[in-house]
Amino acid sequence: MHAPAGGLLAALALVFGTAAAFAPMPRITWEHREVGLVQFREPGIYNYSALLMSEDGDTLYVGAREAIFALEASDISRKQREVYWKVSEDKKAKCAEKGKSKQTECLNYIRVLQPLSATTLYVCGTNAFQPTCDHLDLASFKFLGKNEDGKGRCPFDPAHSYTSVMVDGELYSGTSYNFLGSEPIISRNSSHSPLRTEYAIPWLNEPSFVFADVIRRSPSEGEDDRVYFFFTEASVEYEFVFKLMIPRVARVCRGDQGGLRTLQKKWTSFLKARLICSRPDSGLVFNVLQDVFVLRAAGLKEPVFYALFTPQLNNVGLSAVCAYNLSTVEAVFSRGKYMQSATVEQSHTKWVRYNGPVPSPRPGACIDREARAANYTSSLNLPDKTLQFVKDHPLMDDSVSPIDNRPKLIKQNVNYTQIVVDRTQALDGTTYDVMFVSTDRGALHKAVSLESEVHIIEETQLFPNSEPVQTLLLSSKKGRRFVYAGANSGVVQAPLAFCEKHSSCEDCVLARDPYCAWSPPAAACMALHQAEGPHRGWIQEMSGDASLCPGSPPQIKKGERGGGRAALTAGLPAATSGSLVFGADKVKESYRQHFFKHGGTAELRCALKSNLARVVWKFQNSVLKAESPKYGLMGRKNLLIFNLSEGDSGVYQCLSEERVRNKTVSQVVAKHVLEVKVVPRTPAAPTLQ
Amino acid sequence: MHAPAGGLLAALALVFGTAAAFAPMPRITWEHREVGLVQFREPGIYNYSALLMSEDGDTLYVGAREAIFALEASDISRKQREVYWKVSEDKKAKCAEKGKSKQTECLNYIRVLQPLSATTLYVCGTNAFQPTCDHLDLASFKFLGKNEDGKGRCPFDPAHSYTSVMVDGELYSGTSYNFLGSEPIISRNSSHSPLRTEYAIPWLNEPSFVFADVIRRSPSEGEDDRVYFFFTEASVEYEFVFKLMIPRVARVCRGDQGGLRTLQKKWTSFLKARLICSRPDSGLVFNVLQDVFVLRAAGLKEPVFYALFTPQLNNVGLSAVCAYNLSTVEAVFSRGKYMQSATVEQSHTKWVRYNGPVPSPRPGACIDREARAANYTSSLNLPDKTLQFVKDHPLMDDSVSPIDNRPKLIKQNVNYTQIVVDRTQALDGTTYDVMFVSTDRGALHKAVSLESEVHIIEETQLFPNSEPVQTLLLSSKKGRRFVYAGANSGVVQAPLAFCEKHSSCEDCVLARDPYCAWSPPAAACMALHQAEGPHRGWIQEMSGDASLCPGSPPQIKKGERGGGRAALTAGLPAATSGSLVFGADKVKESYRQHFFKHGGTAELRCALKSNLARVVWKFQNSVLKAESPKYGLMGRKNLLIFNLSEGDSGVYQCLSEERVRNKTVSQVVAKHVLEVKVVPRTPAAPTLQ
Repeated sequence: MHAPAGGLLAALALVFGTAAAFAPMPRITWEHREVGLVQFREPGIYNYSALLMSEDGDTLYVGAREAIFALEASDISRKQREVYWKVSEDKKAKCAEKGKSKQTECLNYIRVLQPLSATTLYVCGTNAFQPTCDHLDLASFKFLGKNEDGKGRCPFDPAHSYTSVMVDGELYSGTSYNFLGSEPIISRNSSHSPLRTEYAIPWLNEPSFVFADVIRRSPSEGEDDRVYFFFTEASVEYEFVFKLMIPRVARVCRGDQGGLRTLQKKWTSFLKARLICSRPDSGLVFNVLQDVFVLRAAGLKEPVFYALFTPQLNNVGLSAVCAYNLSTVEAVFSRGKYMQSATVEQSHTKWVRYNGPVPSPRPGACIDREARAANYTSSLNLPDKTLQFVKDHPLMDDSVSPIDNRPKLIKQNVNYTQIVVDRTQALDGTTYDVMFVSTDRGALHKAVSLESEVHIIEETQLFPNSEPVQTLLLSSKKGRRFVYAGANSGVVQAPLAFCEKHSSCEDCVLARDPYCAWSPPAAACMALHQAEGPHRGWIQEMSGDASLCPGSPPQIKKGERGGGRAALTAGLPAATSGSLVFGADKVKESYRQHFFKHGGTAELRCALKSNLARVVWKFQNSVLKAESPKYGLMGRKNLLIFNLSEGDSGVYQCLSEERVRNKTVSQVVAKHVLEVKVVPRTPAAPTLQ
Repeated sequence: MHAPAGGLLAALALVFGTAAAFAPMPRITWEHREVGLVQFREPGIYNYSALLMSEDGDTLYVGAREAIFALEASDISRKQREVYWKVSEDKKAKCAEKGKSKQTECLNYIRVLQPLSATTLYVCGTNAFQPTCDHLDLASFKFLGKNEDGKGRCPFDPAHSYTSVMVDGELYSGTSYNFLGSEPIISRNSSHSPLRTEYAIPWLNEPSFVFADVIRRSPSEGEDDRVYFFFTEASVEYEFVFKLMIPRVARVCRGDQGGLRTLQKKWTSFLKARLICSRPDSGLVFNVLQDVFVLRAAGLKEPVFYALFTPQLNNVGLSAVCAYNLSTVEAVFSRGKYMQSATVEQSHTKWVRYNGPVPSPRPGACIDREARAANYTSSLNLPDKTLQFVKDHPLMDDSVSPIDNRPKLIKQNVNYTQIVVDRTQALDGTTYDVMFVSTDRGALHKAVSLESEVHIIEETQLFPNSEPVQTLLLSSKKGRRFVYAGANSGVVQAPLAFCEKHSSCEDCVLARDPYCAWSPPAAACMALHQAEGPHRGWIQEMSGDASLCPGSPPQIKKGERGGGRAALTAGLPAATSGSLVFGADKVKESYRQHFFKHGGTAELRCALKSNLARVVWKFQNSVLKAESPKYGLMGRKNLLIFNLSEGDSGVYQCLSEERVRNKTVSQVVAKHVLEVKVVPRTPAAPTLQ
């Protein structure tokens, strides 16, 4: 009558293995007040959702609700220019008449902020449910008053999804085309060849757009540039207890001119495919796209799409990152099978693999050298058979699988919102893709994939009020680089690393941060790419092996215990007499002596930053058992010693023990020397040396 | 380029609303050592997975690995009888030759333990992958040596699923029929009419059986008894990124004799349907059955199936309970639409609703009065058309929806394994279905559905080693009743309630435990159904309204603060001098005075049981801010006062504030009176009154 014992046990082991495996903890948590981040916020202005870097990398353009700012990229608290674009009272009233909120919806949310030329930006806003676009002159920082209809480029409703990319002065965008948001569209705004998607379920089925970008092809090979769109839509090919969402990548060709009769002014090159991001062994399916970042880097053979996902089903806080090679995506479009819909028993539709003959030229293909050779010089002279086929078969049967066939990162108890990725070279020449992912609670996680694990180097609280991060941008300039984050309340500028905060060589190495290395001459943890090379003698070990650190003791291997070396740090006395609190500070090989009153209580502080380390307290070199009647732990780190007597005099050490790859690095974090004495009653003055 | 702000925010609110809503916290946690539970374990015997109560309710039969025990139901530590059924060395060797483990798999796991007659039990065991059944004579507690082939009644592999129920001396079982476990079967072991399922995917598709039971019908209405099977199987009707599981209920009729030609010796009454347990608004789908309990009770119009689920997808610790009315299940079988499979494009199969004509008599129906009137007196003379139809259409298109169309309970961060439900009457006559659900970590949760919420009355740690609970059984006897739980290490007997542990009327009422009420004459919280009625003047409020308690102050309404009444409890001094620890105890309206040394630290204890209450500390009737330099909290409850001086002398009170339905009940849990004095140095003796 019961679930099978063995099966149940196996299933549970899976669940628990899962839970543990998907909860990588950030090694260090930087509270907002600990890291003085440069911020920008303008009183009365909210929703800083559009960020754009100037071509020279010196200026950060910020699109917010009813305003656009130009900020100094190296210090965004310095505002260079500003311009406001407010909704007229008349328009606001009309919008409110349609049942929308005057305070929140009937305003102008900037949704498109793209470079149009060297001197102008292309800007679109929701404009109280009347989407409008204009040109912003960068010299005067004034709008040119173009007042273009923004339908199809910018959503009506600030709650609706949107994405756009400017390619050679033509805007490619994905959003909704009407007031209700019920007509989705992917379009090109072009004076000589405007194109759009068919309004049909097989083309777009309740999509939620998250990203678009252009991938350039070498013209020498006669290949056309492609524009990729990323979105989540309602699935036609899958069914479950309720409607399933599916993440997609779609692409169109820049040279597409539409068809002559069939698909007139419509894309002839629109194809879309499923993105797979799952862990079948653990029952994990990530099918809601949150954001995409295109990683392009010098040493990288081809661009890589980093995509951020959450699950649709049973999501109580799970996020994942999957990465896709451009060539994998292209292979699905250029060589994959198509899907076709079939009618079952008159009333049902099932999408299955199409196994019939495919017309030539291949439906949905860009016009390349081969097509031109066959006399198809433009999409306008493609045969009707090809066009009709692509019209009916925009969906590929093959799926796009991620690199290594599994997510790069799975994290529990978090909802990631945005991602940017930086490819950097460690001291030994190895390259690492550093993922910066923001959360819905105002934090930024910095993660790298190491051999067999994901390591979250640090978590930084960018916004103290825990608001969702809406957008991330990575600075493109050499030298001191930053991540910019936009949220409802403002914009924050964070450095890529906090190297200088690691005060010992061991901490610098244990951080396993490819941006940071220990410089023995400077006796400091330093940012690798800010100082001029070669970094001779600098120490960085992405394995976390700290044994190369000067004066480092032999590391404790698995199973062993004890060891530890001379004090790195010493306690400083606080100013109360009965219960003294010691803050650990960086005073090498030295400490002070303190006198305590008999019968009192001492609290010994241990300022440990690593969330991956455990605290061990020693008294006269013996490990103490906390939570005995004599001792207690406060805040999991600090030691309380109750009812002090002469026997408690001596040396107390707080050790941090951190395990990295079966090796334990033990460091003395704080050293306190206590002397307990009978002190005559004096109400105030502390009896310190 | 970004997810829409509004949409994102809405989505996140959903996720977080979800997370909070699905984490009802047990009000009280009973550690294993706090509640002295009666246990049974026999040295060297493991896997106590089969529990059976004798008809008179006096004896608990326990089937474990290679052993069966008879225990006294009122005190299971008293073993009455035992019998061992070990695998011969010869068989063990043969089993090991087939690649199975001698230590774990090639043993005899008791999987069937059913009453055959008043004097015999029917027992089957895996018997080293040679399933065998025997009769156990209760008088001698010896096996009769029947040595029946257990194929189809008991799995070969202890890891495979199984379920069975004895109906009038015939065993109905669901399990696998072969060594590999690849041939599933639902069968009736009967000398005059053995029946089984077709071996075909539409009938059973990789099922995992969890439960079976018989529902009797009144013979006066000419209706046949039905046997219901509950299992999870691979879905044929749904598809996603990977194979989807689906929970099912199937039923067969007791009077089924199989067909004459078509379906010879096969069920002619086998139909199955989907069970729905989901929350579409939150994206929650529970599609893996863990256990089922049939609730039958005097006042209950019809039996109710309580089913325990976990999700298949993205399950990192979620469980739910859904309840189904018998009539809802029956309506689907007797009036619902069937599903049919259709072939799409030669190679794909899609299951869709069958809309064609249904033969008569209705396929899969039991032989009832109406059928007999039409001269179909037995399944043997059903027309071929009906039989062929049921053979091809065993799956219903209609689903079985739960009561109120939503789960009774959803709980995060837990994996529930088993469920039993007790229907009980509160003091005011209202009936409550109390759900006892066990976890994979050895705990038992006791929950009731109240008006708009689920209330987990308490959590009891049944097994100290946190092993999964494999089976639960509710005692059927009147008077002192118990829940019995079997796990790998042994069996535990727990009372349905711990009323006497609530020491005040407020605590008794706040427990919102339908089994408990406050008796003013006895000044104790008492079990309602153990004492003789009428319980005049007893106090029980399932709303948690404690204002009826004698001497209770007016309750604090939402928003207000302060209040509180005279001390309920007073601190008792501990035996150390510098840092005194006070344990709160039940000493009404009294307290002692204690002297502390100047400069010392005091720890004031507050023994609060409720996980739903928050702690408020007051000094001389003003609320203290903990975590200031002067005060600290230890273990979230106890107050630390540092650096004592004369000004700290006075009355300290620990209040528990518990909110129930917008009302806050405030109780003084501990009261401590401190006097700080300069005490001459004496090394040991505490200076207490």
